[in-house]
Amino acid sequence: MVSIELHPEPITSGAFAPFGDVVMLEGAEQRVINEGATIRYHDLAKIDVSDEGGRAITSIFRGSPRELPFRLRLMERHPLGSQLFWPLADEPYLVVVASPGEPPAISDLRAFHVPAGIGVNYAKGVWHHPLLAINHECDFFIVDREGPGSNLDEIPFPDGTDVMLHGLSV
Amino acid sequence: MVSIELHPEPITSGAFAPFGDVVMLEGAEQRVINEGATIRYHDLAKIDVSDEGGRAITSIFRGSPRELPFRLRLMERHPLGSQLFWPLADEPYLVVVASPGEPPAISDLRAFHVPAGIGVNYAKGVWHHPLLAINHECDFFIVDREGPGSNLDEIPFPDGTDVMLHGLSV
Repeated sequence: MVSIELHPEPITSGAFAPFGDVVMLEGAEQRVINEGATIRYHDLAKIDVSDEGGRAITSIFRGSPRELPFRLRLMERHPLGSQLFWPLADEPYLVVVASPGEPPAISDLRAFHVPAGIGVNYAKGVWHHPLLAINHECDFFIVDREGPGSNLDEIPFPDGTDVMLHGLSV
Repeated sequence: MVSIELHPEPITSGAFAPFGDVVMLEGAEQRVINEGATIRYHDLAKIDVSDEGGRAITSIFRGSPRELPFRLRLMERHPLGSQLFWPLADEPYLVVVASPGEPPAISDLRAFHVPAGIGVNYAKGVWHHPLLAINHECDFFIVDREGPGSNLDEIPFPDGTDVMLHGLSV
């Protein structure tokens, strides 16, 4: 049995950069529009969905909460496009990622704790665990890819592998 | 002086159809994913941004509240792409629209009251008033177009025109 205890770190743009974008107002380009009535925080993530005739679509994911510690069984990736999650609930959530390329070893996994009001955009091909809502059922606004081709790879961890995800240490 | 009092109607997909999509969970295709842990409400709006080499971008608009009744001074349109607004605050908002084509007469305007938790996606070329938050400052998640070409036309109402937008009648 190979066992790992995965503890999330607080997300930052720098730490998450190998995996995609942290989607947030802080640091964004601000444009004042609508005769001063609106601030536009402009172009917050790299939407990268055009490979093989793809196009951007918008969806909402309703995620059931995971009870922590939570045993991870698999990772997935979207080889043809980015996938953006914007949290609609006033709740934090967790993400588990690994760099694009070969299926990750469990020692390659990185876990992040994302506060309410901050989104993530997985870059094309980045390995990630499916949505990890915690505490409550949570909705997320999604921007990802629709189009020809196979855009989902799922890789279960090998038998005898035990990956336990914990909450943020206080 | 040509004067009009504009009273919003409650938004419905049918009434809004000439202007774009009402973005909502109700009626959406539901897909159960992530081994049952997530419901995907799939592809909620027609994201139409590829004209003239355009691509989808994501932004956040922070809208100052308008005091009602509010005098409208202009309409705008994006001739090259759709523009989606998803409300992030737990607040209703108003939209004022007119069909694509020639700049609208004030008698062509339609106003809608949109409850919290429901978005709108203006179809390409649809005339609309800039963001109309009410009650409080409100953030909206935006999906629209970036790319070559001129994607904003603004048309002020003629002098001597008075368009007053009211709140939803109770």
